Amino acid sequence: MIKAGIIGGTGYTGVELLRLLHNHPEVEVMAISSRSLNGKRVDSIFPSLIGQSDLIFSLPDDAVLNECDVVFFATPHGVAMEGAGAFIEKGIKVIDLGADFRISDANEWSRWYDMKHTQAELLESAVYGLPENNRDAVKNATLLANPGCYPTAVQLALKPLITNKLIDLSNIVADCKSGVSGAGRGANQATLLCETSESFKAYGVSGHRHFPEIKQELELLAGEGVGLTFVPHLVPMIRGIHATVYVDLLDENIDVKPFFVEAYSNEQFVIMLDDGAYPETRSVKSSNFCQIAVQKIPNSNKLVIMSVIDNLVKGASGQAIQNMNIMFGMDEGLGLEQIGLLP
Amino acid sequence: MIKAGIIGGTGYTGVELLRLLHNHPEVEVMAISSRSLNGKRVDSIFPSLIGQSDLIFSLPDDAVLNECDVVFFATPHGVAMEGAGAFIEKGIKVIDLGADFRISDANEWSRWYDMKHTQAELLESAVYGLPENNRDAVKNATLLANPGCYPTAVQLALKPLITNKLIDLSNIVADCKSGVSGAGRGANQATLLCETSESFKAYGVSGHRHFPEIKQELELLAGEGVGLTFVPHLVPMIRGIHATVYVDLLDENIDVKPFFVEAYSNEQFVIMLDDGAYPETRSVKSSNFCQIAVQKIPNSNKLVIMSVIDNLVKGASGQAIQNMNIMFGMDEGLGLEQIGLLP
Amino acid sequence: MIKAGIIGGTGYTGVELLRLLHNHPEVEVMAISSRSLNGKRVDSIFPSLIGQSDLIFSLPDDAVLNECDVVFFATPHGVAMEGAGAFIEKGIKVIDLGADFRISDANEWSRWYDMKHTQAELLESAVYGLPENNRDAVKNATLLANPGCYPTAVQLALKPLITNKLIDLSNIVADCKSGVSGAGRGANQATLLCETSESFKAYGVSGHRHFPEIKQELELLAGEGVGLTFVPHLVPMIRGIHATVYVDLLDENIDVKPFFVEAYSNEQFVIMLDDGAYPETRSVKSSNFCQIAVQKIPNSNKLVIMSVIDNLVKGASGQAIQNMNIMFGMDEGLGLEQIGLLP
Amino acid sequence: MIKAGIIGGTGYTGVELLRLLHNHPEVEVMAISSRSLNGKRVDSIFPSLIGQSDLIFSLPDDAVLNECDVVFFATPHGVAMEGAGAFIEKGIKVIDLGADFRISDANEWSRWYDMKHTQAELLESAVYGLPENNRDAVKNATLLANPGCYPTAVQLALKPLITNKLIDLSNIVADCKSGVSGAGRGANQATLLCETSESFKAYGVSGHRHFPEIKQELELLAGEGVGLTFVPHLVPMIRGIHATVYVDLLDENIDVKPFFVEAYSNEQFVIMLDDGAYPETRSVKSSNFCQIAVQKIPNSNKLVIMSVIDNLVKGASGQAIQNMNIMFGMDEGLGLEQIGLLP
Repeated sequence: MIKAGIIGGTGYTGVELLRLLHNHPEVEVMAISSRSLNGKRVDSIFPSLIGQSDLIFSLPDDAVLNECDVVFFATPHGVAMEGAGAFIEKGIKVIDLGADFRISDANEWSRWYDMKHTQAELLESAVYGLPENNRDAVKNATLLANPGCYPTAVQLALKPLITNKLIDLSNIVADCKSGVSGAGRGANQATLLCETSESFKAYGVSGHRHFPEIKQELELLAGEGVGLTFVPHLVPMIRGIHATVYVDLLDENIDVKPFFVEAYSNEQFVIMLDDGAYPETRSVKSSNFCQIAVQKIPNSNKLVIMSVIDNLVKGASGQAIQNMNIMFGMDEGLGLEQIGLLP
Repeated sequence: MIKAGIIGGTGYTGVELLRLLHNHPEVEVMAISSRSLNGKRVDSIFPSLIGQSDLIFSLPDDAVLNECDVVFFATPHGVAMEGAGAFIEKGIKVIDLGADFRISDANEWSRWYDMKHTQAELLESAVYGLPENNRDAVKNATLLANPGCYPTAVQLALKPLITNKLIDLSNIVADCKSGVSGAGRGANQATLLCETSESFKAYGVSGHRHFPEIKQELELLAGEGVGLTFVPHLVPMIRGIHATVYVDLLDENIDVKPFFVEAYSNEQFVIMLDDGAYPETRSVKSSNFCQIAVQKIPNSNKLVIMSVIDNLVKGASGQAIQNMNIMFGMDEGLGLEQIGLLP
Repeated sequence: MIKAGIIGGTGYTGVELLRLLHNHPEVEVMAISSRSLNGKRVDSIFPSLIGQSDLIFSLPDDAVLNECDVVFFATPHGVAMEGAGAFIEKGIKVIDLGADFRISDANEWSRWYDMKHTQAELLESAVYGLPENNRDAVKNATLLANPGCYPTAVQLALKPLITNKLIDLSNIVADCKSGVSGAGRGANQATLLCETSESFKAYGVSGHRHFPEIKQELELLAGEGVGLTFVPHLVPMIRGIHATVYVDLLDENIDVKPFFVEAYSNEQFVIMLDDGAYPETRSVKSSNFCQIAVQKIPNSNKLVIMSVIDNLVKGASGQAIQNMNIMFGMDEGLGLEQIGLLP
Repeated sequence: MIKAGIIGGTGYTGVELLRLLHNHPEVEVMAISSRSLNGKRVDSIFPSLIGQSDLIFSLPDDAVLNECDVVFFATPHGVAMEGAGAFIEKGIKVIDLGADFRISDANEWSRWYDMKHTQAELLESAVYGLPENNRDAVKNATLLANPGCYPTAVQLALKPLITNKLIDLSNIVADCKSGVSGAGRGANQATLLCETSESFKAYGVSGHRHFPEIKQELELLAGEGVGLTFVPHLVPMIRGIHATVYVDLLDENIDVKPFFVEAYSNEQFVIMLDDGAYPETRSVKSSNFCQIAVQKIPNSNKLVIMSVIDNLVKGASGQAIQNMNIMFGMDEGLGLEQIGLLP
């Protein structure tokens, strides 16, 4: 059994790790920390766990964490940056669900996150963990940067097009939509039910923190610069991300579907839909799957790619477990075989 | 491996059976029938199953069903009544998620369901499958009547009070609230999003079909007549039932909590909350758990019991699997260990 | 034109006053105060007002308020208690949408609101403003206590039964359900979309602050003590209250409908539904109407009364304007003729 | 008083006409037709109208319709095409909320609507009623084609850019999102609450009927061909449309805001937001307003325009009334001054 610890377990990615790891046959959660809730039963905060877990929130310096094989950081940015090193020195693998190690350039990171990146060395050793792009590197990672939710959906939508050089890289539009859980569990007037339900809006057009992450990874895939427009929107629902990506095909007559099939036919968690089908976020609710469909616009070179994930699973905690499975040489899908909750 | 068949798999209880049985280590679904969708892939109707199931809808007379060990009827009332006998004769166990065998008096059934009950003999052999009340009988059942969703929530709320003779049986009020999935997946103007979201209403006050079922079972528990008022309401959400039950304590000063603890401490799926806590339907969303809390009204003999279940799990498909586990001598919780989806 | 001021305009009752008064032909809003938002444009907080209002939040001591004919307090409890007197001395009428003057016994108020009531004299002069019960007193009020949302729905459900002495007063159960806007606009983890949507729960069973208000008013109507059980629940929607009230008829065979018709046929805002109909909260969304239906439980003396209101309109700001109209001798429905928003 | 009739009043645009016209000081609704509900009270279908309207559904050949000054068709396509002529011959103005007269080319219409257009002559006389583009023609219209909801939002987003020749017309992407009421009130499995809430998806990418309408009108504005990609999505909410439109500026350094201000400063129902603000659909819920914001993507020539409307008001019934006001020489905003319902 792999011993796992969780730092910062009071948010939605924390409880989602607990839910998913409860189903994992090879992992035991030893400790979960929270400064603010230290000493409280975890099930008093997350009542879905009543009767299923006796965990008690401890402090981040809980000695039990040092006996773990892997520690997940489910913390706001800045926390994993300071805390990861000590675990890694002890030979404990670290998976950061936050943003501290996603941007490879420390200065770029500092600019987007309004905070100096203090761990340039750690940053260099970090592996960006989108398994479908980077599986081999993940296998040997000791410090894993778990991708953001939007970046996961957008990269999976574009990978076969970019690696096969099928599109004009200078004009990519990613119009993305997220459920409200992406905004976290903190008390926040802007995400009250009465402020977000029965409404729809864009946000962060002038600069969302997932923009540089997406751009960096697409450019790595492409081996050159990429012109990206990224607009996130808030959807009145709890879970789910829908990316609608618009690209210009270099050859209007090419059939892109086979490139997607080739890229993903061996991927357990990426599913190509039949022609004419539309992915719905509810199809992947609570599951680690990504569903993708492509649609060519008639009489034009415009292609629309639609991809959906559950932002808390494939967009966060599920992908973190998928990465953990790879890092520990286990079957990649262990603990993640659940079918989505529909309806 | 137990071979299972599903008759009538196009509704929400059908797809929920598929989702839950996918997690069951000892069951394989061999066939799923639908007259209207015969020949269509199941995942074309339920896109959560894409890549996870190759099942194809067949006709109800599909020969494969005759090779099953158990057949689930997830059909409108009247269908299982006609179809169950043939399977039972072949030694195949039948679990009816519908209402055909829940009311032990055929005349009473006929009155509430506007249809003559044609199988009085079968009806006599049927076992009402609320495991917490009736586990021993379930063990030997060949024809199992799976309880309704409201009846499950209300019975679990009242059982310790009735069996211990703590309340006035003549004045029980069950004010119940259900998510919209309880109304089924049929095209129906009344359950459109635009008709049901952002609204709340009662329905069926003058006579809901779960009323005689609840009354029958409470009276069986009590060994005498019961005065029951049952009012169901529709909640603008997909899943969940919340029963708020009002009773008069015979002794205003008695502490009822220990009776609940005694009744349920060995029950895997019934969880008593701490004093002062309120059960939320989301705590059991997607899981087979029932959470219960009791609250005494100060300066009165009124007691309020609140119980929550997921209507599609403990209120339907999960309980059906729990019953199946018991009928086949397996661990009662097999395949049902998942934690609720929160948020 | 009547000059109106609003103290504490940053919550949902504040913006609802602005919306409704915008339609009122005889009222002009002169000032709206907010300590925290002083100097900000009101439409920067409530974007529905962009282009429709040039109001700017001022401080509560804004001199313009002293030139008003009426001042609405849309503030947390304790604020109107301290501030109302100064306006009344100047001859300005005060309508308190909060709770400070609803409970006639200062000690009782202090116990429920965890704060000493400092204005016993003002309290004595205050008029409880449920027009359907108390219209004559409202006409002459200078300090008006606008009823709570639950109390409005419950009182209107019970009035004809109590005044006509048709029910057992010792056993009234009011099972009430409210949309989330009733919990206010403050940043609060408990009312995030991700915590409240797709869920349903009870709260405040052991003592909600509307309990003593309902009890006081019912007892005033009855002229004797009343045994009341009141359980509020939270519904995953923005607006609406549904009260389901259970009473025991003194005479099982009496037809109560005519008593309701008699009580409300001249009431502009209370509508009796036809037999067999169920009121839906959406039918009164955005409007000042209350819709009521009654349903007798067969073979018992139990009667169920269902009433619905929009908690922000008839349950708060709309009723406040209705009271204002009466206090100023205007047509009671002025500015409140809008039909509910459906869907 | 203008006498108005409504043909086909059983859908959401029908009841919305009734709600809005109830507030209109110069219009009286004389008749509302429905073949299926002939003889039924309108308030029995739309309970928001109980006590506010005594209308009874009649047949479409109701003689009262012939005494009207204006007839609104709120019908599926094909109905107004056949019925409009008879009213026009009698001198009755016709406003079609459906699609029959929106596409000026009868063959093009026939192709998109799978039905032969039989009234080429009427079609020629029809005026496309987007007042902000076409006010003068509307004044003299006898047959008015009320625009579709998506087309309204997209055209208002683009008008100042196209008329001022600021953008590359060959690459316009309109990523649009609509609440579920846009799909109508018919019994339809696809729009059940359980199928659409807690989910998000695209639809109609390969050809939505609003595509040719948008393209036609943009090309009319531009005086040349336009390359348009239009992808509609379904949002889990009742009302609202959000258009996110992506264009390439011809001059990356131009400030487009003044062109929007100039275009709309005299428009009562189009509101430009401040820089950095994002329009939310809830801000215009229940109102006839359109709110628009623009955002330049840094370091690129990409401009994002966001516009929101209520699909049932400015996207349907409200705009129809706005057009009626113009056609009858009344104040354009009469009956439409209500502020949006927030929250």
